[in-house]
Amino acid sequence: MDGDAVREAAAPGNERVYRDSLVKLMRAHDTFGVWEKKPDEEVLQGFVLTREQRRAIPVIGDPDPKVVWRLEVFYTAVGYAITRRTGLDATPVIKLSAEGFGRVVITVGRLLVLSRAVRDIHRFGFESTEALTAAGETLVAEAIEVIARRPEVAAETP
Amino acid sequence: MDGDAVREAAAPGNERVYRDSLVKLMRAHDTFGVWEKKPDEEVLQGFVLTREQRRAIPVIGDPDPKVVWRLEVFYTAVGYAITRRTGLDATPVIKLSAEGFGRVVITVGRLLVLSRAVRDIHRFGFESTEALTAAGETLVAEAIEVIARRPEVAAETP
Repeated sequence: MDGDAVREAAAPGNERVYRDSLVKLMRAHDTFGVWEKKPDEEVLQGFVLTREQRRAIPVIGDPDPKVVWRLEVFYTAVGYAITRRTGLDATPVIKLSAEGFGRVVITVGRLLVLSRAVRDIHRFGFESTEALTAAGETLVAEAIEVIARRPEVAAETP
Repeated sequence: MDGDAVREAAAPGNERVYRDSLVKLMRAHDTFGVWEKKPDEEVLQGFVLTREQRRAIPVIGDPDPKVVWRLEVFYTAVGYAITRRTGLDATPVIKLSAEGFGRVVITVGRLLVLSRAVRDIHRFGFESTEALTAAGETLVAEAIEVIARRPEVAAETP
């Protein structure tokens, strides 16, 4: 598959695949069915932190396990959406320290499509669900563009 | 830098860089100086597990924090040796679960140079220090060969 074919297959109008991927992963963890009858919008509310709420969270001590889990789901959904839009396996590796910082990488074949240092995990969140899904969609779009520039590396099995 | 230049700069006779990198990293953690007067060979002895010792370690429950630490040092030294032999920054990301399995990736620029699923971490070890350094050297050599095949991807900042 050449670069244009990657872009054509993945683009346009498919940006919402990220939101759908994130909701799917969130619901997959809903073992007790408490979200079963709740709309998607409500499932995503846990990611929303207003500026005031964010400031009120201290960045010392261990981050709340729930916020760590949400950060992992956020980036795992980026990988999942990349796979759904390109048909290529994306592998996220997320390494977080107990102190609230870490690194996220997502690879496709031999290609590093996302690399990010994260810090102040304690305060991981977004102003709104729109900001949340826009952030995820941007990461997915950037990763697809990286793949489109180097499709032969993305196709190589490591 | 083209592929042949990578190979020429990194090769030959430099295989021992891995052993030296591993010893350096081990000693860097020796805060109390207990290894100060010990020879390198002794510093590496912690990695040695005979077949009988390995079999005797149960793979249920959390792995010993010391063995987790050694596994991380082993792969971090692979990254360090890649950097010393190629002059390119290698970034290891090691994600281990409490249950004793996980994933190790090392990237150079946009190139994935090592990707490995690890399991039964509880039993991480080698028959001898020679087997230990040979294993590390092989991983370094394989990573350098990957870089030599795709130097332009390794040179790209993610």
